[in-house]
Amino acid sequence: MSSLEHEIDQEKLSLTQRTKIGRMPSRGHYERELVYQILDEGLVCHIGFTVDGQPFVIPTAYGRVGDRLYIHGSTASRMMRSLAQGIEVCVTVTLLDGLVLARTAFHHSMNYHSVVIFGTATKVQDEAQKLEALEAFTEHIVPGRWAQVRQPNHQELQVTSVLELPLHEASAKVRTGPPNDEEQDYSIPVWAGVIPLELTASTPIADSRLQKEIILPSYLHNYTRK
Amino acid sequence: MSSLEHEIDQEKLSLTQRTKIGRMPSRGHYERELVYQILDEGLVCHIGFTVDGQPFVIPTAYGRVGDRLYIHGSTASRMMRSLAQGIEVCVTVTLLDGLVLARTAFHHSMNYHSVVIFGTATKVQDEAQKLEALEAFTEHIVPGRWAQVRQPNHQELQVTSVLELPLHEASAKVRTGPPNDEEQDYSIPVWAGVIPLELTASTPIADSRLQKEIILPSYLHNYTRK
Repeated sequence: MSSLEHEIDQEKLSLTQRTKIGRMPSRGHYERELVYQILDEGLVCHIGFTVDGQPFVIPTAYGRVGDRLYIHGSTASRMMRSLAQGIEVCVTVTLLDGLVLARTAFHHSMNYHSVVIFGTATKVQDEAQKLEALEAFTEHIVPGRWAQVRQPNHQELQVTSVLELPLHEASAKVRTGPPNDEEQDYSIPVWAGVIPLELTASTPIADSRLQKEIILPSYLHNYTRK
Repeated sequence: MSSLEHEIDQEKLSLTQRTKIGRMPSRGHYERELVYQILDEGLVCHIGFTVDGQPFVIPTAYGRVGDRLYIHGSTASRMMRSLAQGIEVCVTVTLLDGLVLARTAFHHSMNYHSVVIFGTATKVQDEAQKLEALEAFTEHIVPGRWAQVRQPNHQELQVTSVLELPLHEASAKVRTGPPNDEEQDYSIPVWAGVIPLELTASTPIADSRLQKEIILPSYLHNYTRK
């Protein structure tokens, strides 16, 4: 991890450009598992694409099945229609793990895990695969949820567009650990270290129209992304 | 808020395209304040830009001073060099506020606040303004920190590139509140509501090389972004 860490610390949370990123298979099992782990922990991705020279970065939910990332949206969404044409896309998922407080302004940093994916998306036409994707979205948010809720009907499927993006060209980046100050700065008398950050859930808020006898299901007790 | 909410709920966390976004001044004081509030609470933005037709989405830290967003990076960073050329950029900040669990798979959603900024960045050449930006980065992470740490020296300033992006073309989007199920689905006997999410700090981890007599400063007690 130390070489990654060093690289990222220098880049100040700026990830590598595409040309520096190899195809995942050559990086071996460890990075593939790390990519999957980050994608499975995250809830929102940022989708980058270009229309008429203008870049857009849109936050959206997603799901993963094997080595495919699924995204979805309204069939009327311009993003979905643009991506379905097979234009180049970049999808980034960032998990912020902590603030790195150094003795010097320059060495302040953040700890994080992130994934950057490049590729082109394809519209899912097959209805069974579309349902698999929709199940993945729901299960990604709350495992156990899909079996309990009403599944999409014909009309809902009609107005929902699903795209798949292969995870072939994906890269994970990680910064962990304490600040890296210059040797001569360690004597500066200021607190230094890490403030750990985590996306945490607080007490669920029942819908005001919820039937009174319905209790919170066990899969929502102590909800966490870890 | 209800019209924004409705629009977003339909878009399933896909924000509007540029052509739908007006310039902020015409939207009045309320939206400007909301944009500032979201930017000030967030810690990481996702920067989108295009090089040779390839979109990139890079997570990075930022700071805000008035109606300018500052980003920084190594002078060797390709992102910084590309953006400094004045190419179109899209910067998105997303705060995830909760999971919206509906009675139907289709109406599952997320509560969030987000900002999308379009424009072109300019390299900050003036040394005083560059220091103002670097102070903004540090104070953005932890207010009160800048005065306590060693400030950037000449060499650190030389290897740091700072870009400013005006907040003229910025838009805020918000989804809040409970799930919106179809009327006939409210009788489905499944728990529905919202799981609130928040980025929270846990106990600070002191650097192992910290001098033992240095205690945690008061500005790090109960650290929160709210």
